[in-house]
Amino acid sequence: MNLYDATVPIFTKLLTSADTWFDKAAAVADAKKFDLDILAASRLAPDQYALVSQIQSACDQAKFAVAKLAGKEAPSHPDTEKTVAELRQRIQTVIAYVATFKREDFVGAEDRPCSHAWMAGKSMRGGDYLDHVALPNFYFHITTAYAILRHNGVPLGKSDFIADIPFLP
Amino acid sequence: MNLYDATVPIFTKLLTSADTWFDKAAAVADAKKFDLDILAASRLAPDQYALVSQIQSACDQAKFAVAKLAGKEAPSHPDTEKTVAELRQRIQTVIAYVATFKREDFVGAEDRPCSHAWMAGKSMRGGDYLDHVALPNFYFHITTAYAILRHNGVPLGKSDFIADIPFLP
Repeated sequence: MNLYDATVPIFTKLLTSADTWFDKAAAVADAKKFDLDILAASRLAPDQYALVSQIQSACDQAKFAVAKLAGKEAPSHPDTEKTVAELRQRIQTVIAYVATFKREDFVGAEDRPCSHAWMAGKSMRGGDYLDHVALPNFYFHITTAYAILRHNGVPLGKSDFIADIPFLP
Repeated sequence: MNLYDATVPIFTKLLTSADTWFDKAAAVADAKKFDLDILAASRLAPDQYALVSQIQSACDQAKFAVAKLAGKEAPSHPDTEKTVAELRQRIQTVIAYVATFKREDFVGAEDRPCSHAWMAGKSMRGGDYLDHVALPNFYFHITTAYAILRHNGVPLGKSDFIADIPFLP
């Protein structure tokens, strides 16, 4: 067992799925004659992150998960995006970054101490960081992004979220 | 590394969190004088699962994940719930079931072939089943449940979702 399997292909697949949601969103905006970027500023409650921040947060969770588990320094991606086009670029940037990681980068990752600025000097066992922080936060933000689009009439279904799954031959 | 850590404490913590969301939901219903069970039938889009189905689905994903990874037969939990009180009971039933699993039940789980009725005779490697099916679906449904409550004015924040995280001493 190697944490590569629980991170690189998963983040890549889900972020790739999220990118395709914007094709469907663009089709709805086109058909209904509204500005696609209105969706980027949409949210489900007034005191909730808008779609743009949900995508930025999902991207950061993926980026930091692979970097910290592999003991590398993650690149900085300032949260400057305002448009759907910029969000899609952010997604592609993170997919490309995640693709630089190899299986061997994750040898021993489950026991590697992982720390973040918000941990205020504390650290977590790598496996716990993945299970208790990175995955729940990643899924929280990417599912909320999906829900915001869904709520605004974008025709998404579960298969747009889960995508292909690897069966045994 | 043992898949116990990625399943039992995680499902238990998130389902316990979800149960507490209903305390906050009940307080809102009480203050605004509406029937709490209206929330059980709420959804973010007309062709989306209502809250009741989101919770049932999250419960089933947790139940099936631990059962199949451990090579056991999961109990049947018919989707009969209609009220918040019944949903909370379903959550407690699954938390109690998950608590019957021990670390040793998951030895070799990552390579155990896991199958489901919907797989139509196919099966998946246990680790892939967890990473590609059980976790994404569990988080998808529990986050959507959270989003439905959030959209309806229940004052939830990220800490109500993530709850306690285990730092190194």
